[in-house]
Amino acid sequence: MMKPRILAIRKNMLEKNDFLARKLRSDFSKNRLFVVNIVSSPGSGKTELLVKLIKSLSRHKIKAGAIVGDLATDNDARRIKATGARTVQINTDGNCHLDAEMINRSLKKLNYKNLDFLFIENVGNLVCPAGYDLGENIRIVLMSVTEGEDKPSKYPVMFNSSDLCVISKTDLSEVCNFKKKLAEENILNVAPDIKILSISARKGHGLNQLIDCLISLKKQQELK
Amino acid sequence: MMKPRILAIRKNMLEKNDFLARKLRSDFSKNRLFVVNIVSSPGSGKTELLVKLIKSLSRHKIKAGAIVGDLATDNDARRIKATGARTVQINTDGNCHLDAEMINRSLKKLNYKNLDFLFIENVGNLVCPAGYDLGENIRIVLMSVTEGEDKPSKYPVMFNSSDLCVISKTDLSEVCNFKKKLAEENILNVAPDIKILSISARKGHGLNQLIDCLISLKKQQELK
Repeated sequence: MMKPRILAIRKNMLEKNDFLARKLRSDFSKNRLFVVNIVSSPGSGKTELLVKLIKSLSRHKIKAGAIVGDLATDNDARRIKATGARTVQINTDGNCHLDAEMINRSLKKLNYKNLDFLFIENVGNLVCPAGYDLGENIRIVLMSVTEGEDKPSKYPVMFNSSDLCVISKTDLSEVCNFKKKLAEENILNVAPDIKILSISARKGHGLNQLIDCLISLKKQQELK
Repeated sequence: MMKPRILAIRKNMLEKNDFLARKLRSDFSKNRLFVVNIVSSPGSGKTELLVKLIKSLSRHKIKAGAIVGDLATDNDARRIKATGARTVQINTDGNCHLDAEMINRSLKKLNYKNLDFLFIENVGNLVCPAGYDLGENIRIVLMSVTEGEDKPSKYPVMFNSSDLCVISKTDLSEVCNFKKKLAEENILNVAPDIKILSISARKGHGLNQLIDCLISLKKQQELK
């Protein structure tokens, strides 16, 4: 059981985080920048998806940048930078999630003027990033078919706090004996309002639907 | 940056955890119980491995029990209980790892007398469980071929704090284009003393080597 003193400190930290996140969201909005926070288990294909997504958006003359979080290495930033996109790597030095302060510091290195989209690739972790608002407009949770259908039931807060669930690596559905209907039931059971899409970044399946969805959400945001 | 007050509280919590973990380890030793803490990303196949492992051990007249940690659901405990093994589910209610106190409470529900092995399936998370000693004799980190070869570089503490790395789901190596040699280099780069084994729990590959390894480690422990 968490002690009251620790609960109070944690509450205080979250309040400070949320205050800064609201400020960031307002800045993003003034710059007509649509910000997407991508969360998932380690190895669900966040980086591969981002590489394909940014390349496709670029062909539509839509500019995207990225902030990438990991405990260690700059592997992911290098992969995304190779698309030509402005990219900043955050190393959390053991911390299990990104927070608004880390994003705020990264923005000083990332010139986000004239960008349409900013993708934030969070630390691979289905627990800790759930509680931290980064000032994003939407949160996408990726769930790979290799992880099994029960992850939404086991990590309900992460799915419930997301706007869009992307089922990834669908080219492996058959060999993994993935039951899509069961997975969708489990997702909707903990997150009744979530939108669900399926993709295979490797095969390029489902990318166009995801791009249409992102563009439409960006337009809705700008009309608010 | 973590504030000094929070660092002090965290240090204090970890000290209390380690004190209790040492007591548990001593109790386990008196009962000739060998305890294995299994950590991994969500969906790397911990439960499937345990089900197959416990069944195989049972055919060798070796008795194993399990404590299973999840944020929510008792899915995993039900799967393991179906093998006939004594099993206790811990629901962490949002907490991202097990700790020694949770294990201590579970032991009151699990009669571990006459058991040879106790497997603790930790919360699926490659970050937070690394810092928490549960009184185990060895820690096994599972890494599925579907997650890519770079996870050891990105989550070095988890691999470095483990005694054995089990590469899982090897039946999917080819479709995932998994580079085993590169993965092994990455593992040994952050954990030079770790032992590496490969398994496919689904196909039954590598289970015998893993069982031989566990029995041999148990014997070494008893000679200490």
